[in-house]
Amino acid sequence: MSEPASALRNDTFLRACLRESTDYTPLWLMRQAGRYLPEYRATRARAGSFMGLATNPAFATEVTLQPLERWPLDAAILFSDILTVPDAMGLGLSFETGEGPRFAQPVRDEAAVARLAVPDLERLRYVFDAVRSIRTALAGRVPLIGFSGSPWTLACYMVEGAGSDDYRLVKSMLYARPDLMHRILDINAQAVAAYLNAQIDAGAQAVMVFDSWGGVLADAAFRTFSLAYTRRVVQQLKRHAEGRRVPCIVFTKGGGGWLEQIADADTGAGADVVGLDWTTDLGGARRRIDDRVALQGNLDPAVLFAPPEVVAAEARAVVESFGAPKRPDGRFGGHVFNLGHGISQHTPAEHVAALVEAVHGHSRHLRNAT
Amino acid sequence: MSEPASALRNDTFLRACLRESTDYTPLWLMRQAGRYLPEYRATRARAGSFMGLATNPAFATEVTLQPLERWPLDAAILFSDILTVPDAMGLGLSFETGEGPRFAQPVRDEAAVARLAVPDLERLRYVFDAVRSIRTALAGRVPLIGFSGSPWTLACYMVEGAGSDDYRLVKSMLYARPDLMHRILDINAQAVAAYLNAQIDAGAQAVMVFDSWGGVLADAAFRTFSLAYTRRVVQQLKRHAEGRRVPCIVFTKGGGGWLEQIADADTGAGADVVGLDWTTDLGGARRRIDDRVALQGNLDPAVLFAPPEVVAAEARAVVESFGAPKRPDGRFGGHVFNLGHGISQHTPAEHVAALVEAVHGHSRHLRNAT
Repeated sequence: MSEPASALRNDTFLRACLRESTDYTPLWLMRQAGRYLPEYRATRARAGSFMGLATNPAFATEVTLQPLERWPLDAAILFSDILTVPDAMGLGLSFETGEGPRFAQPVRDEAAVARLAVPDLERLRYVFDAVRSIRTALAGRVPLIGFSGSPWTLACYMVEGAGSDDYRLVKSMLYARPDLMHRILDINAQAVAAYLNAQIDAGAQAVMVFDSWGGVLADAAFRTFSLAYTRRVVQQLKRHAEGRRVPCIVFTKGGGGWLEQIADADTGAGADVVGLDWTTDLGGARRRIDDRVALQGNLDPAVLFAPPEVVAAEARAVVESFGAPKRPDGRFGGHVFNLGHGISQHTPAEHVAALVEAVHGHSRHLRNAT
Repeated sequence: MSEPASALRNDTFLRACLRESTDYTPLWLMRQAGRYLPEYRATRARAGSFMGLATNPAFATEVTLQPLERWPLDAAILFSDILTVPDAMGLGLSFETGEGPRFAQPVRDEAAVARLAVPDLERLRYVFDAVRSIRTALAGRVPLIGFSGSPWTLACYMVEGAGSDDYRLVKSMLYARPDLMHRILDINAQAVAAYLNAQIDAGAQAVMVFDSWGGVLADAAFRTFSLAYTRRVVQQLKRHAEGRRVPCIVFTKGGGGWLEQIADADTGAGADVVGLDWTTDLGGARRRIDDRVALQGNLDPAVLFAPPEVVAAEARAVVESFGAPKRPDGRFGGHVFNLGHGISQHTPAEHVAALVEAVHGHSRHLRNAT
């Protein structure tokens, strides 16, 4: 480890994840190191491709720190992709210009499923090297978040071979051959757990599971094919490192209706923090789960297209919707401010300044006023 | 009117919409007259284009009746598009092959918004002619449903000019210039209400408002920019024709989390029936609204890719999730079986037979067993 835990100078994010008292509401932004930043685009141009960027620890470190140079964000997130694990399984990940991710070898029949195996973590060494490099570069400024796609979300891409608007292939397999789907998910859960634990070993101080496509499932199918496998991942995670708890965040896009199930201690994800997209009322969500987990979210990323004063007003509304972390009974709720989805490449970077200032300033103000 | 109300031979759908006793659960399928049917593709080829099909009452009648010739569906739905109203406003709707709808003149600035007006309904005469023609052809077999896009959903397409995956333009206007957005929505609400009333005058026996893109809005924005304007439409509707109540269905895709708000009598949509997509648990939804409205839905359309026995089992599960319409207190709930979204063009048509048989057969069986 490059830094002892005691050297972490801003642990506001970790404290909010664990529902401890904080001076203000911490924030970070999903995809904060990304195409909306000209300095990111410059580094990517040097790297030649997205995977060239992600597989080179020096480049990954450079772009991970770029947004932190601009704004006092409260966490860094490893620059990588949610699909590194199936790439390491040999499916051949690539990113074509203007397109999303694509697998050269999608998993569409019994033979392809039979060939799947938990990958040798050595093939993902570039990720762990990046984690170590970023920790060194951060030098204790803020915590570093590691991440992976959820077993179900990985399966969507593995079967479809790319993004989809109807998930026809993966859902056909799910309904017609649930045995094959369960085998894929079982392997994915083992692989993701090992992968996240290796990130923790390398220095990740929190981990996040992106269930980006959980929300496309039917209600009953979500529990069986997404939540159950996310839970398996979380249950296998190392939850302590460097003398601190390593919080785990689970984000199911489109999963607001399932919040109670995701947050349930006995049958839910088992996460410390549940991420919400912008369609869910944050204050209502907090009441529904009664602060049994912390919540992360949930400004509509499209708000950042509006003028800075609108951005600030909408950000304050999210902070107020959650309300004071301290409850009348003396316990604390936890709120990590974030967008409800990744920041858009079309975001004017200067609007982020208004966001950060509003969240930090208004949450401090509310704590002092109450 | 071509048929007196007394001649309607199957009113099961209308009765379920109004929470009256029925012998079985009625069903119809969103986009039931569509590309998954070879006979539809043949008619469309003769018509030359989608709009050529939709604007010709003889063709529209032919394709509307095609699914009813195959299966004993309990309602017909006008063959048309949700975007006919902005087309009549002069925005120039077209459908490019393999693409979705596109407007030649999107509404993106103050000048374009200022030019918008409620269209002369004469420009939509082809729709009302189609309604009359379909009623004659149906000859009382089942009721005919008319429809439109919701004010918000129309606005999405009007501003974006086409489908979108981030709704950047329409949300930018919403957040940066809410005054312009309210003006568009106000005009849309007036136009949609007049349009649906003219469909009712022409013979539509129920109407449905498709809020296909309500689910992309942030929680608070949904109430202000979608639900409030859907309510305005519904409040202006003629609710009686031919001696019967004309039920109104409101479907917000992705709106399951807002079900109580949509169903609220005083501030909600004001609909008789609320449609649900497949991500919401139907039985749970029924309990949440305590049968204050009927519910329509909500099988995942992807289930139809699975073998017929799986289709039948999943359909039975939806019927059982709703439960017996008759409550212990003697009142009735209403369930109209449907998919949670339009039927996919990739659906094997023969799988629909298994669906219809399972819904009709199992719902009769459950009524007789209890």
